[in-house]
Amino acid sequence: MDEPSLIFPAAEYRQRLQRLQGEMADHDLDALLLTTPADIFYMTGFLTRFWESPARPWFIICPRSGDPVAVIPSIGIDLMQRTWVSQIRTWDAPNPEDDGVSLLSDTLCDLLPDTASIGVPMGLETHLRMPLRDYDAVAARIHPRTFLDGTQAIQRVREIKSDAEIDKIRTICQIADRSFAAVPELATAGTPLDHLFSAFQGTLLQEGADWVSYLAGAAGPDGYGDVISPATSSPLAKGDVVMLDTGAVKDGYFCDFDRNYSVGPASDAVRRTHAALWHATEVALERLRPGMAACEAHGLLVRELDRHGVIPTGGRLGHGLGVSLTEWPSLTPSDRTELREGMVLTVEPGAVIAPGRILVHEENLVLRHDGAELLSPRASYEIQEI
Amino acid sequence: MDEPSLIFPAAEYRQRLQRLQGEMADHDLDALLLTTPADIFYMTGFLTRFWESPARPWFIICPRSGDPVAVIPSIGIDLMQRTWVSQIRTWDAPNPEDDGVSLLSDTLCDLLPDTASIGVPMGLETHLRMPLRDYDAVAARIHPRTFLDGTQAIQRVREIKSDAEIDKIRTICQIADRSFAAVPELATAGTPLDHLFSAFQGTLLQEGADWVSYLAGAAGPDGYGDVISPATSSPLAKGDVVMLDTGAVKDGYFCDFDRNYSVGPASDAVRRTHAALWHATEVALERLRPGMAACEAHGLLVRELDRHGVIPTGGRLGHGLGVSLTEWPSLTPSDRTELREGMVLTVEPGAVIAPGRILVHEENLVLRHDGAELLSPRASYEIQEI
Repeated sequence: MDEPSLIFPAAEYRQRLQRLQGEMADHDLDALLLTTPADIFYMTGFLTRFWESPARPWFIICPRSGDPVAVIPSIGIDLMQRTWVSQIRTWDAPNPEDDGVSLLSDTLCDLLPDTASIGVPMGLETHLRMPLRDYDAVAARIHPRTFLDGTQAIQRVREIKSDAEIDKIRTICQIADRSFAAVPELATAGTPLDHLFSAFQGTLLQEGADWVSYLAGAAGPDGYGDVISPATSSPLAKGDVVMLDTGAVKDGYFCDFDRNYSVGPASDAVRRTHAALWHATEVALERLRPGMAACEAHGLLVRELDRHGVIPTGGRLGHGLGVSLTEWPSLTPSDRTELREGMVLTVEPGAVIAPGRILVHEENLVLRHDGAELLSPRASYEIQEI
Repeated sequence: MDEPSLIFPAAEYRQRLQRLQGEMADHDLDALLLTTPADIFYMTGFLTRFWESPARPWFIICPRSGDPVAVIPSIGIDLMQRTWVSQIRTWDAPNPEDDGVSLLSDTLCDLLPDTASIGVPMGLETHLRMPLRDYDAVAARIHPRTFLDGTQAIQRVREIKSDAEIDKIRTICQIADRSFAAVPELATAGTPLDHLFSAFQGTLLQEGADWVSYLAGAAGPDGYGDVISPATSSPLAKGDVVMLDTGAVKDGYFCDFDRNYSVGPASDAVRRTHAALWHATEVALERLRPGMAACEAHGLLVRELDRHGVIPTGGRLGHGLGVSLTEWPSLTPSDRTELREGMVLTVEPGAVIAPGRILVHEENLVLRHDGAELLSPRASYEIQEI
């Protein structure tokens, strides 16, 4: 139990910190205050499922120069001491009278000059994982230091993955791929969908996932209604398309891709739609390049679906991936984020096959200087039959 | 796939709403704005693992009179339509230009008078699951309506479980109990801890858990260093105590209890400490009553550990349980929350067995008018040997 819990060598975290400090300089920030599981894991390697408990807030302060400081509940000291973070201050949480407010405020005041601007992620796809009342109390106590939006600083750093991170994502993609390959042995006509979900999660664990943070899916004749539902107990029927979409985790890194299966022979409509989704993905894999905007990638997918005569689903058709199941940017018509070398992305074209029935196809890739490199072993062109 | 996704009949949710509306009246609130997975599931029955994606905010507005209104990303409409909520407004998220800000603001203005006070959970054990910048933008747009702290209103309602909820928690406790019983078949001296973790999660799924949101544990000679770590690959050794602590989920409800095992015969120190923890739990089971304060329950446990000559761990020694792995109140010296009939609680005494080595014991119970009723089948007095 005393082995270091670092997922990577300390040098990896030092590089991240250095890049983050570069962004802080660019954005005139003197520090960043991080509160979410993903941001804290990214900066420290502190990996625990204890985030499932919403009782306690956790804080990492990254100053523009110098090492990060952890201000955390004492229950976490043993684990935090096994990371590369050496400055750790703790309080006995939860404490209804002062749940870290004075310790966090004092630490910010100790570390930072009166004039300091402290970045807090406040923008798209962020939230503040601490009580709002306590945030306001800290803001008052650290005056004249101020909290500003630090979204750009953290997102521009996290979105570019190191080779070590890409290896982790590739590993969990391979675990999921082997699990998807087992699905025809786990289900047949008559299998209740929730039994398949249970067996599939078990397979992911056997294949090497540490845990299964996300599994959604659905089944229905010639398609399904949505892609976020948990399983019902309805049995699979001949003619159903069943889709499984998983965010399994290894060493804190996610995969996020899906596979579709036809229960018995697929209808012509399903074959045609599956082929269109496959081709749209293929076009993205061929044409994505650093320098394109996220909305241009969306356009590529939509045009290819159109060309094959299928109706694209609304919403986003892909997104970032890493220490969260989904990260920015989003492949939507309105996201102008520049795609950059080192981004790990999902490409997720969806098609409306009939009113209330859709099919969705998803792969994971890393964007290299010369284009996409697949991380999820490619789905077969023909929908798999079970 | 079109079966209703209601975990309970609509009448259960209507009762919850009625109780919440009573609290709103008591606290002079005209509405509550809910944003977290637990609060939204509690009010609507909207159950999805899609919360794992931090990309999109979700909103439920509960007015002081009338039914709740969902303001949600369009990806959730199919699933939300299968709950009892009939008023659903959607936008195409994530949208970097306006990610629900205007739709939420307009809805609040449509539903509520200019003078409205809107409760938002801002207190201990809460957070706001939306971008802070967008919260500020909504606050500005709905002026002169104001956001106030609504923590009391939601917590006083959620903390009292209905019989239907208690049945759900009992069910998942029984699933975990059967899984704990299988541990001696899953591990022996030499088994890497992470293999045991994987096998134990598989067992929980086979026994009927929908998913395993939380599993922590540790192993070490005569005790372990903390209770929140993921597994390492260290093999179990003779003389180790191994502890597994799980928050598995069925129908959206959690269990949260642990079991300790000795690899080979336990030392005298381990036997003595395990017995002290068992007795402390027993005293809590005998003496907890509605009307006591949470801090009094903490005192009961500490005194019984003292009486047995073991050193209690710091931090909390139990907490609420339900649609989250941990809920308020906390059994700490400073939490004066009144224990009430219908609360589901964990009792979690811990003891320091040697410097840096602890043992923790945990059971789940519901507080009835005449005392505690166990929900987790009681751990054996003697530590189990594997």
